[in-house]
Amino acid sequence: MQQQISVITLGIADLNRSRRFYVNGFGWAPVFENDHIIFYQMNGFVLGTFLKTALESDMNRHGLLQPGAFSLAHNVTGKDEVEPLMDRLAEAGGAILRAADAPAHGGFRGYVADPDDHAWEIAWNPAWTIDERGLVTFGV
Amino acid sequence: MQQQISVITLGIADLNRSRRFYVNGFGWAPVFENDHIIFYQMNGFVLGTFLKTALESDMNRHGLLQPGAFSLAHNVTGKDEVEPLMDRLAEAGGAILRAADAPAHGGFRGYVADPDDHAWEIAWNPAWTIDERGLVTFGV
Repeated sequence: MQQQISVITLGIADLNRSRRFYVNGFGWAPVFENDHIIFYQMNGFVLGTFLKTALESDMNRHGLLQPGAFSLAHNVTGKDEVEPLMDRLAEAGGAILRAADAPAHGGFRGYVADPDDHAWEIAWNPAWTIDERGLVTFGV
Repeated sequence: MQQQISVITLGIADLNRSRRFYVNGFGWAPVFENDHIIFYQMNGFVLGTFLKTALESDMNRHGLLQPGAFSLAHNVTGKDEVEPLMDRLAEAGGAILRAADAPAHGGFRGYVADPDDHAWEIAWNPAWTIDERGLVTFGV
């Protein structure tokens, strides 16, 4: 079985509010959008932001909760990029959960919640490589 | 800003129970494991399964909830692969949320929850390409 995830879909309440965080905060460009979903082409997979009611209907499960027991990480290539990006995400509607500091395993990272309370870790991790396409390889 | 996600981290209660779902169900191989986290090298990023208490401590936020307002998708290359994989995931500790059927936008998909109630969509979507490395490209 291919070791592959095709889509990460986040349930959101307001497309424009979420779009502002991802487009103005991260600086990402949608590849598709309509009145209930926005897709972003990522590094080898797709990120979707989908109205939570529609996601619940699609997965046949209601009462999805926030904050969910997960986080997403965006790694940067230099320690000095972590805090400016966290600041920009906060200006675009995010909320700082943990100011950036150095974890025991090395590197430098902080956490920001998106407007729907989904957690993003912004990290500099020098042990992991990121190629020019954005493909990330685990390292220790 | 690189349109890139480096890690998806799922909060879990029991490493062995979760490992059985991902290793025996999906057939994936860990790239690293210790007594609180297991990492899987995916298609251009890393999947982590991390004890929820440790994830909460790392992100400086407690009370993470399940089921969270998100889903992950694993796409397969043929319609006839969807149901056998869902069955194998159920045998490995998953729970069927939605039996496979055809959504309005085309293709064929169902949903399975992992042992920690994180939702996985298993989908055949002929409009999206998946290359030999598992890199997925959005299409309509």
